[in-house]
Amino acid sequence: MNIRFYNAKILTMNGDMPVFDGELWTEDSRIIYVGDGSNLDEYYKRTGRSAIIWGREIDCKGNLIMPGFKNCHTHSAMTFLRSHADDLPLQDWLNNQVFPYEAKLSPQDIFEFTRIAILEYLTGGITEIMEMYLTPGSIAKCCQEMGMRVTQVGGVNNFSQSPELIDKRMEELNGKNDLTSFRVGFHAEYTCSLELLKKIADLSHKYKSPVFTHIQETKSETDGCIERYGKTPVALFNDLGMFDYGGAGYHLVWTNDEDRLIMKEKHVSVVTNPGSNSKLASGIAPISEYLNDGIPVAIGTDGPASNNCLDMFREMFLVTALAKLKTNDASAVPATEVLKMATYNGAHVMCTPDADCLAEGKLADIIMMDMNQPNMQPVWNIENNIVYSGSKSDIMMTMIAGVIRYDTFDGFQRFNVGKEVPDIYRDCEVIKKRIFG
Amino acid sequence: MNIRFYNAKILTMNGDMPVFDGELWTEDSRIIYVGDGSNLDEYYKRTGRSAIIWGREIDCKGNLIMPGFKNCHTHSAMTFLRSHADDLPLQDWLNNQVFPYEAKLSPQDIFEFTRIAILEYLTGGITEIMEMYLTPGSIAKCCQEMGMRVTQVGGVNNFSQSPELIDKRMEELNGKNDLTSFRVGFHAEYTCSLELLKKIADLSHKYKSPVFTHIQETKSETDGCIERYGKTPVALFNDLGMFDYGGAGYHLVWTNDEDRLIMKEKHVSVVTNPGSNSKLASGIAPISEYLNDGIPVAIGTDGPASNNCLDMFREMFLVTALAKLKTNDASAVPATEVLKMATYNGAHVMCTPDADCLAEGKLADIIMMDMNQPNMQPVWNIENNIVYSGSKSDIMMTMIAGVIRYDTFDGFQRFNVGKEVPDIYRDCEVIKKRIFG
Repeated sequence: MNIRFYNAKILTMNGDMPVFDGELWTEDSRIIYVGDGSNLDEYYKRTGRSAIIWGREIDCKGNLIMPGFKNCHTHSAMTFLRSHADDLPLQDWLNNQVFPYEAKLSPQDIFEFTRIAILEYLTGGITEIMEMYLTPGSIAKCCQEMGMRVTQVGGVNNFSQSPELIDKRMEELNGKNDLTSFRVGFHAEYTCSLELLKKIADLSHKYKSPVFTHIQETKSETDGCIERYGKTPVALFNDLGMFDYGGAGYHLVWTNDEDRLIMKEKHVSVVTNPGSNSKLASGIAPISEYLNDGIPVAIGTDGPASNNCLDMFREMFLVTALAKLKTNDASAVPATEVLKMATYNGAHVMCTPDADCLAEGKLADIIMMDMNQPNMQPVWNIENNIVYSGSKSDIMMTMIAGVIRYDTFDGFQRFNVGKEVPDIYRDCEVIKKRIFG
Repeated sequence: MNIRFYNAKILTMNGDMPVFDGELWTEDSRIIYVGDGSNLDEYYKRTGRSAIIWGREIDCKGNLIMPGFKNCHTHSAMTFLRSHADDLPLQDWLNNQVFPYEAKLSPQDIFEFTRIAILEYLTGGITEIMEMYLTPGSIAKCCQEMGMRVTQVGGVNNFSQSPELIDKRMEELNGKNDLTSFRVGFHAEYTCSLELLKKIADLSHKYKSPVFTHIQETKSETDGCIERYGKTPVALFNDLGMFDYGGAGYHLVWTNDEDRLIMKEKHVSVVTNPGSNSKLASGIAPISEYLNDGIPVAIGTDGPASNNCLDMFREMFLVTALAKLKTNDASAVPATEVLKMATYNGAHVMCTPDADCLAEGKLADIIMMDMNQPNMQPVWNIENNIVYSGSKSDIMMTMIAGVIRYDTFDGFQRFNVGKEVPDIYRDCEVIKKRIFG
């Protein structure tokens, strides 16, 4: 089907292209045209198309079309624990409030609670997530059913999953459909033996796959690794050949100059999670230093039990606000950089470069933002408005792979996710009662 | 008129009362009943009422009724500079991007740009603001016209306004209507001569009024005062008798033990502004220490040029997130404390104790929050959901003084503020063009 968005302001995130007034056309899952609507003869001639028969034409009424947000680190189904236990020290929280309940979750339970998170992603303009959780099979099924783009990563550690299972999932969960993929990953250094880490490095070589994991989230985790191995997790992983095909580290709060040299050299990106790092008192990541060193930064919400919301607007503000506090410099990490992290960089970190910006041939992962909300007025600078005063209440539409999965065009929230919202909540309540009694 | 809210979840913020299922009734500007709807015979007997004829009955469908948020520090009309210049060092920003343009604003310009801020307050469930800006007369008029509750404070300094003007406004802007009031205030120590400060202290004695001002926002401001007077602003103001009737300080980021002793003794509250303090790299206020010392804390957004959004949900998360980071303690400043700051404490700081909670006889400053948004699901703990995953996209209604000023009951946003929203934006664009050319 062909969809035409016209009368739009367009922020492509394609290089430094400024916001312009124009149109965007989609065909099935791809963008086939972005421009100001002039010189269409040239377009038709170049593409060999004739006049297009529109399946739908949407008058954007001057509102903004831009790439969807990329949430590069989450554990979606942890919605089941949202607000169950907050304001606790990290280890107490993990050992007493998370692990015992997670152990009771079935793949189907995880499927259902992932649904709540996906509803939240859609209302917040998130079109793609990088997921690490317990049952990738049921999560892939859920994302396909609801239309969410997802790159899953393994979460193997000493207590659950195995390199053999990751290997199997690399075969099973890749190449099956356009929305979901799977990459080599593991939980973290402090939960994996050296033997296990070596096997994971072997896997990344076998598949020539980048590797994804939690790295240097807390000071004690980092110090513990130095005690165990005489080096930081970044250095240890590098010595094991883990980064020979690049990858990304979630959190990376506690890094030193040597870590950053390795990351730069081995194309290891940062996925920063400022909401979670604050709520769990883990620290402030050195974002300014990553930018100075030319290390790409993307953004994640982390899971809904440690954040607790899945809102890239909150995260975007926190990225720059915390960087400003950390460096005592109000000019640190400007809004344009943050917006690039939340969109363009996120797509590249998730190995889906076709979702990085709005351009001919790119994936139609697109959102519409309401320019007539008071928090977006007046209009001096749309990028700054998005980062500093934007809110998910401005999201009017979330389209993934050319399908509108969420919109508020006629006032009401309309979800297009294969199941009614009240039914999703009801089924999750039933599971909650079963698990917690 | 009598309005009945039924089928609601109710969070009164009245002591430790837990959320319950029930009803809330209003009559004109006041609440006349809050309860579970049982034992109404006793109610009618006690109050001498007979059966009430409802002007409107609203089925809350299980959604949450709670007191509106109190934004205790703002400069509303600075919407005119939102996103005009971000990511700049504080003094550069103030001297080159703020003061030259502010000087061109007429009272009517300020009236119009205050409107945009009030629209934003309403969409975010804010029912009351403490305002410091240039033309209190036109601001009071705007708030009355749009139905916003406001406590204004003087902003006198060496360059504008005068103690005589504050005196005049104390007479002119108090006792005229129920929505607006005016209190003694000044800009800050570093912009006022000692002679001026003494006159302000005299005024507070004349009116037995608490005093409000920016205090110890930045380290350099605090150090500068110590250089000038051999003491901090808090100590200086106290020595001048400025706090003999209490008051509150905006920001209070850089305080020491002695400052906090004075604040405790003289009933000086803190209005913390974490969004602004982060964006301008001013620092993190010692909120845990204020709580430990028993000093009341309320929350403000600060103005929309330094934050840039007027969203108490963002501020609530920041209050606890930054406190956790500052103290390296994930249990610091729990959600229940934050919610009290944003509602109950705010009302007391603004000298409107009748707006502090939902109870018989209190002001009908009430909001409704959507419990069926995915970020509010599942329901383990409603208070924690509000602080950690709540969003202004959850706001379904904002009522001030018994009048519904904003709602989304039938999907669309409906404002009841005396002027159409597109006209407000259009008129502000005209002013913007005139001022900036």
